[in-house]
Amino acid sequence: MAVDQLQLLALKNFPLVSPGDNLINLIIQNLGEQHMMLEPGDVLVVAQKVVSKAEDRYVALNEIEPSEQARQLAVEVDKDPRLVEVILRESNSVVRHCPGVLIVEHKLGYVMANAGIDASNIEHEASDTVERVLLLPESPDDFAEQLRGRIVRLFGVNIAVVINDSVGRAWRNGTVGMALGAAGLPALRDRRGEKDLFGRTLEVTEVALADELASAASIIQGEGDEGIPVVLLRGLDIASMGKDTFNNGATLLRPKDKDLFR
Amino acid sequence: MAVDQLQLLALKNFPLVSPGDNLINLIIQNLGEQHMMLEPGDVLVVAQKVVSKAEDRYVALNEIEPSEQARQLAVEVDKDPRLVEVILRESNSVVRHCPGVLIVEHKLGYVMANAGIDASNIEHEASDTVERVLLLPESPDDFAEQLRGRIVRLFGVNIAVVINDSVGRAWRNGTVGMALGAAGLPALRDRRGEKDLFGRTLEVTEVALADELASAASIIQGEGDEGIPVVLLRGLDIASMGKDTFNNGATLLRPKDKDLFR
Repeated sequence: MAVDQLQLLALKNFPLVSPGDNLINLIIQNLGEQHMMLEPGDVLVVAQKVVSKAEDRYVALNEIEPSEQARQLAVEVDKDPRLVEVILRESNSVVRHCPGVLIVEHKLGYVMANAGIDASNIEHEASDTVERVLLLPESPDDFAEQLRGRIVRLFGVNIAVVINDSVGRAWRNGTVGMALGAAGLPALRDRRGEKDLFGRTLEVTEVALADELASAASIIQGEGDEGIPVVLLRGLDIASMGKDTFNNGATLLRPKDKDLFR
Repeated sequence: MAVDQLQLLALKNFPLVSPGDNLINLIIQNLGEQHMMLEPGDVLVVAQKVVSKAEDRYVALNEIEPSEQARQLAVEVDKDPRLVEVILRESNSVVRHCPGVLIVEHKLGYVMANAGIDASNIEHEASDTVERVLLLPESPDDFAEQLRGRIVRLFGVNIAVVINDSVGRAWRNGTVGMALGAAGLPALRDRRGEKDLFGRTLEVTEVALADELASAASIIQGEGDEGIPVVLLRGLDIASMGKDTFNNGATLLRPKDKDLFR
């Protein structure tokens, strides 16, 4: 992968996404409007939030009846018991909690605060009596594969797709982009056996390529009012990586029994 | 930061770096040779390894006498006791360990496997009887500030610098680029108080911008035989971020008493 240049291009003027919208069509349409021709090796990085919106993963909190467990936990973490109930329903287990913080293992395996549930950049009813939150997509890996398949069939161009989100981490302040789903590339790139500059076999070295792409795209997606849910990343030499090395976002999840931090 | 395009450019044909080399001069010289003119807002991302090499942070393991603590720990983690001794000397504390894994808090605060000490991409003596390892730089933040200051004075152009490394993480497989040091930008970008698309105040939202830049650059730096230690990232609107928001790599370290994973 001796590339010497990468480009990240925002898909500009991307429309607001609503439940029932065909997000794949919206992306293809926007590429056309922006006169962006896809090239082999391009990576489309799509923010989780628009996938969730298209999938209508909204939950109205006034329809949620918190369980006793949720009520107790809500007191400990100082959050709305209805929100805690939704978080628990989306989770396999609580990993850590303290006042203000609730870190869980999401049903899909991600370790995240609040199961990735989010209340920013969500349209709210005018009355504001119904508070809505937005769950993660049903299956980010499946959506990535669907978008990729559609584009390969339509344009005959091999591209990759990453679905990203902004997440907090252990040990470090601030959020970074992380890959929830991926298709058409080695999300986890195994470089063991390759040589370093001096001909020594590399020791470590599985690289979380999809997470690095997710972080790169996140730089221009922003968190606030930018409204850039889709970023095209160009220059990655995916063809040289070999289809047999491709794997998805789930590959990036460290199994619980190999994780020292749960 | 409504940017709609970012470019990552490798500094090609970068020379091998040896102890005593003036890395700042090498970078400036290479920019000239590659006819790359720096522009305001450019970010130079420099791999930790070349900073360490220039600073002669090599340690010859045959000169290390392991302590009793290091010998015991070496058995538990199945590593060379001399390497374990060097890791402990570079660390404040051991965070987790198990066979094959030794995660510590580095003296500078990073939580990393093996205190960031590394044996790949290091020239070894022909005899191979002296095994050398390479420590992290003395102060990545200081080096970032020095490189930035030199370039501002020389070219009158405001740039930012990030010193990056590839690191493992809790919960996820594979390494990603992380910022050890930074200067000339908000390494941790505080976006609290800004509005989202719908005019709601953002909830979270400190973004680990320098870590995202570190990951982006890591995509083209590679781990193997690419030999791309320095990457120029262009397109970030740093000027709009305001000098009073600038902070360094140390800002990204979550204080131990606020960390649920130590």
